[in-house]
Amino acid sequence: MSPTPTSATTAPRESLVSLERGVAFVERHVGPREDELATMLAAIGLDSLDALADATVPASIRDRAGEATGLPAPASEQEMLAELRALAERNTLTVPMIGLGYSGTVTPPVIRRHVLENPAWYTAYTPYQPEISQGRLEALLTFQTAVADLTGLPVAGASLLDEATAAAEAMTLLRRAGKAGTSRSPRFVVDADTLPRTLEVLATRAAPLGIELVVADLAAGLPDGELFGVLLSYPGASGAVSDPTALIEAAHERGALVAVAADLLALTLLRPPGELGADAVLGTTQRFGVPLGFGGPHAAYLSVRQEFSRQLPGRLVGMSRDADGHPALRLALQTREQHIRREKATSNICTAQVLLAVVAACYAVHHGPDGLRRIATRAHRMAAVLAAGLRAGGVEVVHDAFFDTVQARVPGRAGHVVDAAHDAGILLRRVDDDVVGIACSELTTVAHVEAVWAAFGVAVEDVAALDAATADALPGGLVRESEYLTHEVFHAHRSETSLMRWLRRLADADLALDRTMIPLGSCTMKLNATAEMEPITWPEFADLHPHAPAADAAGTLELVAQLERWLAELTGYAAVSLQPNAGSQGEFAGLLAIAAYHRDRGEAHRDVCLIPASAHGTNAASAVMAGMRVVVVATGPGGDVDLDDLRAKIAAHRENLAALMITYPSTHGVYEAAVREVCDAVHEAGGQVYVDGANLNALVGLARPGAFGGDVSHLNLHKTFCIPHGGGGPGVGPVAVAEHLAPYLPGRGKVGAVSAAEYGSPGVLPISWAYIRMMGVDGLRRATLTAVAAANYVAARLREHYPVLYSGADGRVAHECILDLRAITKSTGVTVDDVAKRLADYGLHAPTMSFPVAGTLMVEPTESEDLAEIDRFVDAMIGIRGEIDRVASGEWPVEDNPLRGAPHTAACLTDKWDHPYPRQLAAYPTGATPGVHDRKVWPPVRRIDGAHGDRNLVCSCQPVSAYA
Amino acid sequence: MSPTPTSATTAPRESLVSLERGVAFVERHVGPREDELATMLAAIGLDSLDALADATVPASIRDRAGEATGLPAPASEQEMLAELRALAERNTLTVPMIGLGYSGTVTPPVIRRHVLENPAWYTAYTPYQPEISQGRLEALLTFQTAVADLTGLPVAGASLLDEATAAAEAMTLLRRAGKAGTSRSPRFVVDADTLPRTLEVLATRAAPLGIELVVADLAAGLPDGELFGVLLSYPGASGAVSDPTALIEAAHERGALVAVAADLLALTLLRPPGELGADAVLGTTQRFGVPLGFGGPHAAYLSVRQEFSRQLPGRLVGMSRDADGHPALRLALQTREQHIRREKATSNICTAQVLLAVVAACYAVHHGPDGLRRIATRAHRMAAVLAAGLRAGGVEVVHDAFFDTVQARVPGRAGHVVDAAHDAGILLRRVDDDVVGIACSELTTVAHVEAVWAAFGVAVEDVAALDAATADALPGGLVRESEYLTHEVFHAHRSETSLMRWLRRLADADLALDRTMIPLGSCTMKLNATAEMEPITWPEFADLHPHAPAADAAGTLELVAQLERWLAELTGYAAVSLQPNAGSQGEFAGLLAIAAYHRDRGEAHRDVCLIPASAHGTNAASAVMAGMRVVVVATGPGGDVDLDDLRAKIAAHRENLAALMITYPSTHGVYEAAVREVCDAVHEAGGQVYVDGANLNALVGLARPGAFGGDVSHLNLHKTFCIPHGGGGPGVGPVAVAEHLAPYLPGRGKVGAVSAAEYGSPGVLPISWAYIRMMGVDGLRRATLTAVAAANYVAARLREHYPVLYSGADGRVAHECILDLRAITKSTGVTVDDVAKRLADYGLHAPTMSFPVAGTLMVEPTESEDLAEIDRFVDAMIGIRGEIDRVASGEWPVEDNPLRGAPHTAACLTDKWDHPYPRQLAAYPTGATPGVHDRKVWPPVRRIDGAHGDRNLVCSCQPVSAYA
Repeated sequence: MSPTPTSATTAPRESLVSLERGVAFVERHVGPREDELATMLAAIGLDSLDALADATVPASIRDRAGEATGLPAPASEQEMLAELRALAERNTLTVPMIGLGYSGTVTPPVIRRHVLENPAWYTAYTPYQPEISQGRLEALLTFQTAVADLTGLPVAGASLLDEATAAAEAMTLLRRAGKAGTSRSPRFVVDADTLPRTLEVLATRAAPLGIELVVADLAAGLPDGELFGVLLSYPGASGAVSDPTALIEAAHERGALVAVAADLLALTLLRPPGELGADAVLGTTQRFGVPLGFGGPHAAYLSVRQEFSRQLPGRLVGMSRDADGHPALRLALQTREQHIRREKATSNICTAQVLLAVVAACYAVHHGPDGLRRIATRAHRMAAVLAAGLRAGGVEVVHDAFFDTVQARVPGRAGHVVDAAHDAGILLRRVDDDVVGIACSELTTVAHVEAVWAAFGVAVEDVAALDAATADALPGGLVRESEYLTHEVFHAHRSETSLMRWLRRLADADLALDRTMIPLGSCTMKLNATAEMEPITWPEFADLHPHAPAADAAGTLELVAQLERWLAELTGYAAVSLQPNAGSQGEFAGLLAIAAYHRDRGEAHRDVCLIPASAHGTNAASAVMAGMRVVVVATGPGGDVDLDDLRAKIAAHRENLAALMITYPSTHGVYEAAVREVCDAVHEAGGQVYVDGANLNALVGLARPGAFGGDVSHLNLHKTFCIPHGGGGPGVGPVAVAEHLAPYLPGRGKVGAVSAAEYGSPGVLPISWAYIRMMGVDGLRRATLTAVAAANYVAARLREHYPVLYSGADGRVAHECILDLRAITKSTGVTVDDVAKRLADYGLHAPTMSFPVAGTLMVEPTESEDLAEIDRFVDAMIGIRGEIDRVASGEWPVEDNPLRGAPHTAACLTDKWDHPYPRQLAAYPTGATPGVHDRKVWPPVRRIDGAHGDRNLVCSCQPVSAYA
Repeated sequence: MSPTPTSATTAPRESLVSLERGVAFVERHVGPREDELATMLAAIGLDSLDALADATVPASIRDRAGEATGLPAPASEQEMLAELRALAERNTLTVPMIGLGYSGTVTPPVIRRHVLENPAWYTAYTPYQPEISQGRLEALLTFQTAVADLTGLPVAGASLLDEATAAAEAMTLLRRAGKAGTSRSPRFVVDADTLPRTLEVLATRAAPLGIELVVADLAAGLPDGELFGVLLSYPGASGAVSDPTALIEAAHERGALVAVAADLLALTLLRPPGELGADAVLGTTQRFGVPLGFGGPHAAYLSVRQEFSRQLPGRLVGMSRDADGHPALRLALQTREQHIRREKATSNICTAQVLLAVVAACYAVHHGPDGLRRIATRAHRMAAVLAAGLRAGGVEVVHDAFFDTVQARVPGRAGHVVDAAHDAGILLRRVDDDVVGIACSELTTVAHVEAVWAAFGVAVEDVAALDAATADALPGGLVRESEYLTHEVFHAHRSETSLMRWLRRLADADLALDRTMIPLGSCTMKLNATAEMEPITWPEFADLHPHAPAADAAGTLELVAQLERWLAELTGYAAVSLQPNAGSQGEFAGLLAIAAYHRDRGEAHRDVCLIPASAHGTNAASAVMAGMRVVVVATGPGGDVDLDDLRAKIAAHRENLAALMITYPSTHGVYEAAVREVCDAVHEAGGQVYVDGANLNALVGLARPGAFGGDVSHLNLHKTFCIPHGGGGPGVGPVAVAEHLAPYLPGRGKVGAVSAAEYGSPGVLPISWAYIRMMGVDGLRRATLTAVAAANYVAARLREHYPVLYSGADGRVAHECILDLRAITKSTGVTVDDVAKRLADYGLHAPTMSFPVAGTLMVEPTESEDLAEIDRFVDAMIGIRGEIDRVASGEWPVEDNPLRGAPHTAACLTDKWDHPYPRQLAAYPTGATPGVHDRKVWPPVRRIDGAHGDRNLVCSCQPVSAYA
């Protein structure tokens, strides 16, 4: 693991086999060089990574060396890419005409390169520091505006995980919203012509919440009885388009609210549900340029009427103003989030799909309303002419009114037709033995239509004549007349030059990993290596339809199977499911597994979930969603679970104990010594142990939750396993379980589906596969210990300037450390906010604020930062402490000093200046470095007034003039 | 060509076939929308592009509509990419072990994505405005430092076109340098063990200059007789390494200077030529991570002893200081360039290979000295063990001492061995019937070595044992002991995170097309579309060895043939050669064709080349290199060729008239009405007409030089046909000729090779292919006229603020316009420099300064800029005129005003301020725009003192502390 010695003359000759290996990838992934690591260890008072492991990780849970050896030996970047290329070539690309919520689309190359393949976009974190996130906030606002315009409802969120879970979120939203005044019934009626996968996920989500799902053919009207809500599809899963107005009115008359699952592209031609009375509209934005990726990741949308805006799950970008009174964007209504509301949260949604939402927004900007309408018209006309040709050939077309999807009845011959089309390179949908579904899209050509006809045994002589003779198939009363995408952003960037510059401008406004470390505790902002990222835009992985025949997806399926095996090996579990497409989904799936296991054993009454007070808010929210009752366990002064309280709570709920959820190492950044005792106590009482894998980056290669007492864990591939955060998604949250829970993984028979796609977000799985393949178990162990060394180094250097809140018995932390500013705030008035914003002036991203403890900063440097960068952060924090002292000494008033004034824009510094601190100190607290070595990054706005934004919720784009 | 109408209801229904076409690419390439174009035309007083064509381009040369119809109908981005993918798949990738100056290498993914695929790097122009080019200047300085360190000579240039032309440049450099005091002989001795292609290009270049090339086996010492210089190879083309010290000493004793062609990677293990007495060292840097690309583009290097630094051809980055006294980089000694020295220039080198030099520099930074040494060791050890295995198997290995290349003698069996290896997927070199060459590299594995053995019919039982028993094959006395790459930049970025951030920081220091228009007259800075750029990093195009069998390169060869046909069609010529890898090389090749044509007709005495006074400096330099005498033709007050003077010069040189070189439209940006008369007059006197295609962007689709009188043209694919400028290269300068000159194209029998690779820079040809394929002839014509409209719009809006220097009879310009500041400078003291630097404060790149006329600015907006961006530039220029007026009025002194102070760094604005203009005006002359809409870009340094840098030439990296 040591780098090659400097002098060739003194080194023994390296063998050919060793030379052939080239540079180990771990040398690129891990930041500190050997001498830097030695410096860091010395500061901690240790002399090796092994000593660090001994000093931090309890011996009781440590793996014996070489225990997790089921992983292949590490590959170089080139070897890994060659293997992945071979897997990619085992996929067979065909023309996707299956539909079912996944459409052929073209990712414009300019968007692929400048967004999907650009680290300025994909390495950013969720925009919790809005002053240095204005770029992606503007892109998300553009997304919201496009959704709001197209759906005809005024308030849209900044993306959800997928269409199926968006439908589930809409279901619970209607229930919450309805409670205010209308029906209290637990019944939710869903049209039978809904995407099958959406029906499955609704069922999974409804049951634990006591919602009674009624699936009915609504052509004949609403079923009798009470109901709190209805879900319609527009168009239906069959492709049929019918006017939902009467059903919406009927539902409203009965005190119920109505959500409509709609195809966003269809809404460029069809009257939007908002105009037809819907209360909420949802769906996927995949066909707005987002690669199919065998099912994901894609951004789903959800829009609502104004009065439900505060009920929206997930994130909402809104307009506020900065300290200079200029308009500025931020995430609005953040107090709704689960980390605040915990078991009172209304959703466990945390991760969004920001990167994909940005792609979809860019697609709308690139094409504008005219371009989108033309793309929709293409899909519609192809379908209309295709249907006409089938009818002319004597094939029955099931529906008269449709957008882009046609169903044809060929009694007993559906399989034959689908096979014939497949032979021609086209994927159709086999609805049943008698019916074939054909979905058109932006990709459909006349040649494809002809090939489909041929598969049905139909030939059309003169397509142009048929085209001319074929009327549109949209119901007359539903043709859209209202305008959309009228904001100038959808009109200003039609040329690639203009779009490219807009994207660069937005990217430049944000601070991502390509410019600075992002020491966000609990977020694990490590390197997303290019070699890991490149394969995800290879067409063989990107352009695969999730319902392609298994043989056509052999490469991706093999990749999924290998990754599941490796993750099981690394966590000590028996089985892994990659279906959950966010950590919160993984939690939900894991808890469902526990609940089903108890139920199968005749212990359905076990519904108490113990959760330590320090847990991430999603834990409690997920438990509630899984139908459990949350009982909080106290944590002691050192941050550990209070064993006495645990024993007391177990005793109190012994009969009903379902599970304990525990994060390890804890959210306080500490390896609790007693974790085995904790697990044993729960097991002894008949409960199951859920080990939250959020902090797995401190464990991989050292200890395995499945081996020290866990029955279930979820992992965050977007933390430990290098999937980039994408500015706030995609995330991947696989759930790993012990042998006895394997039958309860989602979709394996005993528990229903939790995500729209079978494998969640397969499109980004090559990233984690590549990381593990290149690191090997030794590399992963080295990464883990380097991350722990970095956190301890930060703690050691900063301890005399800021109290370190929690640490283990010997004063050491795990992979993150918490700096306690509460006493400083109390004595000086300087807040964690002031420190966080001031860091932006230093060209640095802030640590996590006020989690898990209000008034603190949690720092996680990760293994990828080298000593120079860690020191830059530490020196900045020490510099800030010096500034705090000047406030404390009265030199600067608490309301006018470089901390409270932060961040400073360049514009504010060239304006008149009447502050007690000089301009230069404001801008260059460490002194300006001339030339290209300067690390200064200018925030585009000053500190943003959060409260103002929440009071004046503006969720769609304002004209640029509003900024003036 | 008009965009889709906004309202679907009023539009007639579009046919399926039309819908299928999607958005025409021309709509993405061309900036102005229809309404914007109407605004622009109205400002010019015209109502359509056709009217503009009638008003500007002389009817006498206009094509009839549809004349250039040999081009296919335009394809969409997707269709084009699919076609290119099909061509790519016709290439067969094998393991390259041929050598001959092209080695297997790994482009690190982080460098591929962050440099090669990053518009911030590839869309930049040559760093003539150093204040906004510090990033690539630093990267180039790093390149120079790596070359200087490795070659052991202190001064290295910022890259040359390829190894063969670098050898030719070294040859002429030695001749110039030698003239000062030593041998005046015309003889240049070249070792026979030199790359064959280098020998060819040397011959092509030597003959017109009267240099007598002597190719000799130097093993027996220098041949008798006088000589001015020697070229050695180290290692030789055969792979053999011998100590050149004695030869160098012998040459020096005879008053000659010595250049050494060296393998840069080998120099990590071998004593550098500089230590052995060489005066110059040259070679390619391809194997430093630059894709093979079937031969190019790659950056060549040339380093020299200190006393020859002012003789270096091409560009040299040096350290100067800025107005605040901080170190800052710039191109040093720019007065040597041909646009100043014209026929007295010592080289016609203009374009460099900046993008590839940056890649090579990054490769050195990524690997550092230890990594490079280990890569070299791998190649060497593979070769050593391979040789040992061959010997053990009874095969004769020709040389005992080698670096990475081995020759094996197999009498009569060479073809058989090469074929057998090819069957195993490995390319070897068939030296002749008896000898096979095998070159190892960073890619070579033990498996490859075993496959090579097998091709020879040799088997090695225990490779590890053979490895252990095999000594190195480097001559003992030549093992390198001196250090290299000791500068911290080669040690600081070993982790990908650190390298990524360094690259981002450098990119952020530069102003490229991704942030602003670059209205550089004569440079044609148009969109380099992503769809055009993506294919160049596809492995099928990128990883092809130039000496691969034709069948393995079928796709690239077909692409080359199609592109040649299309270019011939668009220019009206009979044949095109893509071999010249820069415009200047194209000029040279075209003039060689003319000279050879005259010679073949028994008119070798025709050696006079008429060149208008306004011509680009390379014209004269190229003519001199081609052995011609330059006679300057006057230009009239309007910028046109002075017809009277032309006739007089023709009369004076009638018997010896070889050619006229004329740029059309002229470098003054005017379509000269009399161009046919000019051509006729030259032809009538027996001369040939060379139409310089530098301004072809004003002609494509409107007129064809081959049809209005040209016999030869070169084109700049990096101007008109979208190959990006790469920060100063690569360029591609194909030469196009009429039927009678076709046999005289380079390398087709009558004229020798002008570039190292047969097809010049095939690696970037997919860009131009894609552009033409997507535009079609109508799209190209629309682009041309839009560019002309844009230039005329700029002229119309700016005319009242700055005199427009030249224009046609009716006051119209072609695709660029010249703003005359001479009177302003005279009356106010404000210079073109002041205006250019002030534009940086406005967030804009300056136009071309003082070319073709000193004291002017030449503006070329191109077709890709939309009206908003053109107006931003025009408004800035008007704003600057207002600032000039305030200087003129005495409000601001000429030595202290926002113009002279420009550009202003953020740091200087936060410092103390004692200027008569406010900070805010300095930084935000148009007012600050808060948020992400701000277009402000901060230059990293203030105005750079050029003279200081030229006096204190520092051409390699300084420690960062030097910046403090």
